[in-house]
Amino acid sequence: MPVSRSLRTLADLAALVSGQVVGDPGTPIAGVADPRQAGPQDLVFLLDPKYAEAIGQSAAAAVVVGVEAPIPKPQIVVAKPRVAMARLMAAFAPPAPFTGIHPSAVIDPTATVHPEAAIGPLAYVGTNARVGAGTIVHPGVAIGRNVTVGAGCILYPRVVLYDDVQLGDRVILHAGTVVGSDGYGFVPDEAGHQLKIPQMGNVIIGDDVETGANVAIDRGTFGSTVIGRGTKLDNLVHIGHNDRIGEDCLIVSQVGISGSVTVGDRVTLAGQVGVAGHLSIGSDSMVLARTGVTKDLPPKSFVSGFPARPHKEEMRRQAALASIDRMRRDLAELKRRLDARREEPPR
Amino acid sequence: MPVSRSLRTLADLAALVSGQVVGDPGTPIAGVADPRQAGPQDLVFLLDPKYAEAIGQSAAAAVVVGVEAPIPKPQIVVAKPRVAMARLMAAFAPPAPFTGIHPSAVIDPTATVHPEAAIGPLAYVGTNARVGAGTIVHPGVAIGRNVTVGAGCILYPRVVLYDDVQLGDRVILHAGTVVGSDGYGFVPDEAGHQLKIPQMGNVIIGDDVETGANVAIDRGTFGSTVIGRGTKLDNLVHIGHNDRIGEDCLIVSQVGISGSVTVGDRVTLAGQVGVAGHLSIGSDSMVLARTGVTKDLPPKSFVSGFPARPHKEEMRRQAALASIDRMRRDLAELKRRLDARREEPPR
Amino acid sequence: MPVSRSLRTLADLAALVSGQVVGDPGTPIAGVADPRQAGPQDLVFLLDPKYAEAIGQSAAAAVVVGVEAPIPKPQIVVAKPRVAMARLMAAFAPPAPFTGIHPSAVIDPTATVHPEAAIGPLAYVGTNARVGAGTIVHPGVAIGRNVTVGAGCILYPRVVLYDDVQLGDRVILHAGTVVGSDGYGFVPDEAGHQLKIPQMGNVIIGDDVETGANVAIDRGTFGSTVIGRGTKLDNLVHIGHNDRIGEDCLIVSQVGISGSVTVGDRVTLAGQVGVAGHLSIGSDSMVLARTGVTKDLPPKSFVSGFPARPHKEEMRRQAALASIDRMRRDLAELKRRLDARREEPPR
Repeated sequence: MPVSRSLRTLADLAALVSGQVVGDPGTPIAGVADPRQAGPQDLVFLLDPKYAEAIGQSAAAAVVVGVEAPIPKPQIVVAKPRVAMARLMAAFAPPAPFTGIHPSAVIDPTATVHPEAAIGPLAYVGTNARVGAGTIVHPGVAIGRNVTVGAGCILYPRVVLYDDVQLGDRVILHAGTVVGSDGYGFVPDEAGHQLKIPQMGNVIIGDDVETGANVAIDRGTFGSTVIGRGTKLDNLVHIGHNDRIGEDCLIVSQVGISGSVTVGDRVTLAGQVGVAGHLSIGSDSMVLARTGVTKDLPPKSFVSGFPARPHKEEMRRQAALASIDRMRRDLAELKRRLDARREEPPR
Repeated sequence: MPVSRSLRTLADLAALVSGQVVGDPGTPIAGVADPRQAGPQDLVFLLDPKYAEAIGQSAAAAVVVGVEAPIPKPQIVVAKPRVAMARLMAAFAPPAPFTGIHPSAVIDPTATVHPEAAIGPLAYVGTNARVGAGTIVHPGVAIGRNVTVGAGCILYPRVVLYDDVQLGDRVILHAGTVVGSDGYGFVPDEAGHQLKIPQMGNVIIGDDVETGANVAIDRGTFGSTVIGRGTKLDNLVHIGHNDRIGEDCLIVSQVGISGSVTVGDRVTLAGQVGVAGHLSIGSDSMVLARTGVTKDLPPKSFVSGFPARPHKEEMRRQAALASIDRMRRDLAELKRRLDARREEPPR
Repeated sequence: MPVSRSLRTLADLAALVSGQVVGDPGTPIAGVADPRQAGPQDLVFLLDPKYAEAIGQSAAAAVVVGVEAPIPKPQIVVAKPRVAMARLMAAFAPPAPFTGIHPSAVIDPTATVHPEAAIGPLAYVGTNARVGAGTIVHPGVAIGRNVTVGAGCILYPRVVLYDDVQLGDRVILHAGTVVGSDGYGFVPDEAGHQLKIPQMGNVIIGDDVETGANVAIDRGTFGSTVIGRGTKLDNLVHIGHNDRIGEDCLIVSQVGISGSVTVGDRVTLAGQVGVAGHLSIGSDSMVLARTGVTKDLPPKSFVSGFPARPHKEEMRRQAALASIDRMRRDLAELKRRLDARREEPPR
């Protein structure tokens, strides 16, 4: 596992997450782990009380908890154990795999690479592109003309940034992600053939955005496709041209958003959702997995189904659907009974 | 925005699209733009009358219209403004980012690259491959053995063409697209393990085809997978082995087509559609978003739903479905009323 | 077609598949083909009796059959013609496109590449990585730190293996596949922003696994994401973090499996299926195309629909659904009749 092995004390780690130490503050910690694989210098996390006993029996050195637990090990008590876990795991992240500019990378002479950025083997940085401090560009990445990459970004292998793309700071793009491909715009010409509408806009990605692997984000036709600060995309997501996605959204794997869609802030689109073009989805909405959104959604919508409708309504509909075969039989029976009555003598 | 700034006159541009100039034919034009961002030398487009006033108030130098509009600016009047927009945008497209063969590219000595083709940094051209005139091969593209790429093509970064793939002229493949991967063919062996059926065919892509980013097009088992002239694929589309897609089709993002499917000409498969194997979809069919096609479709089909059915029928079905919970309640009420009658004295 | 032209006799080929020769055992065979394209030295396959006549009229030299057929050509008779086809096609597979280490590849000095492995142009092999005997690494592949690739693997162009990934023997990964990207794990921090949970695990892929193009397989948060021996993934599949997929499974194109899912052995997930997180799918289950799995499935399940239910039940439900519009009309008619009765004079 890629966990660095430099020792820290439990007290040092508690300070990173504003936690209280219970037990020996000098307990040496070398890494973080799942309780099932933990070694005697590993820190583990109690996220669900039902695992307390298993953690007690594990080899782990210490445990992070929300309230002091009946576990015979030193503990760090924090308000939010899951948030503390995220921060403590980050503290043990492996070092960057590259520093400086690898001799096999191709950097256009007009590009500006910050001296503290790392450009890995066989990467390409194009004309007038700029790469910020602390950014890590992995092998095989291709950065186009006039691209701006902020500070502290990670571009995993084979990411492609087309011309004019702008990335904020601390953006993470996983391998194979493509940013700035042409939007899907065609118009039938006089002969009925599809004529390409050139896509002259760009893509602007805010600070702290992350995408999964093999994501595709199209550039605007005119103007920009925008992904707001802090929004997280999962693998194999499609973002259409001129979409404007808000901040702190969660867009789960294989979601497809057609062109010119506006998504507010803190919206969740769960796995395999599809959104038709030119729609608006209000802030704080939750769109459940596999929903097909065909109309605008107001803020705080909570929808499912295809076409999307309020989830409670969809649940009632699903319950009725589950009994539709019985309904059909009941209906036939009622008809039979009513027909039988008609045939009674007209007394 | 990647728009070149060489000046042209309004009259020159009108000639490109067989338009009539209203106002000063010498008006200098430096680019095309969205009215909201247009500068004083930009040409804009009136595609919907409701934007006439906004365009009148914009900084734009001139406007392309379908009929002369009450806009106090020089105008180009054309029969089809959207078609004119496509052509005029293309006239202002940025120059190719590369010319010649970059020294970091690897060209097999048996490959033939036309002197007017451009091979970008860190691209690879394999044994006996041929690349035509005016074609642009972006960084990191990998072209396999015996591949033919026609003239005027654009292969964006990290496109992969497997051995024996044939591309026509003016083909555009966006970043991450894979052409010629093995089809999904396995057969259980004597021990029940899945044995690979080697995929010995290839892929043939016609003139003027475009694919989006991260598309996957499988080679034939024997023979060819074929994408017909002028067909346009969006991002993240899957094309199975031995599919034969016709001409001028629109295949929107995240569509999946199983193997051995035949699609006619001018067929639209909207976003997230799935098509089962060995089917035939007739020419001029429209398959709406998220439809699951499970049977052959005759020409001019207009279908939706899963399983796909005529869209009118699916609309009626959806309307009934929307009231299914009320139907269930009505049915219970009818049953109650009928039961109550039964219990009446038999007068 | 990429078929080598070295001649073999029919008898040699029959021996490869334990078949019986009918006719001249010395018949020279240069390749395998589809009957429609077969030349006079090609071997073809009779998989369906209805093609017997067409094969008889083809130019093919000989035919592989399940029982001796009335075809006037030399024959190889085998128990399982489709299995024989797979093996005989493999016997004519083209030679590897590369041998040795291409001078443009970048191999970290700490990496170990077996002398019989081939590393293609512009590929990268990272720190402490190991590549086994007979493995072929195509152009542009990126192999991270501490990765182990077994023997006889094929990594097609632009495959990415993140740090710590482990591949067994004879693994085939098609172009653009990403193994080991971060799982989708975030937790809201004190300010409501999504905080990344670092993904410290890895991916372990068993022997004889194959993936299609542009697949994305996430690493575990802690511990491993596992793909079992012999499992085959199609194009554009998403595998979430900490999934444990069993052996000999078939996971068809565009399937998405959320995190922490357990899939047994010999499970088929057909095209565009989605599986919610933390579920278990029992061995020998069949999940039909476009199914949405929302609950655990016992072994030998056969399900379809969304939410997934037993296929027979879903078929009845679909049949009822197909008549829902008539049901609605019948219900209205019954209500009218019952209302009419109520209005009868109270005789």
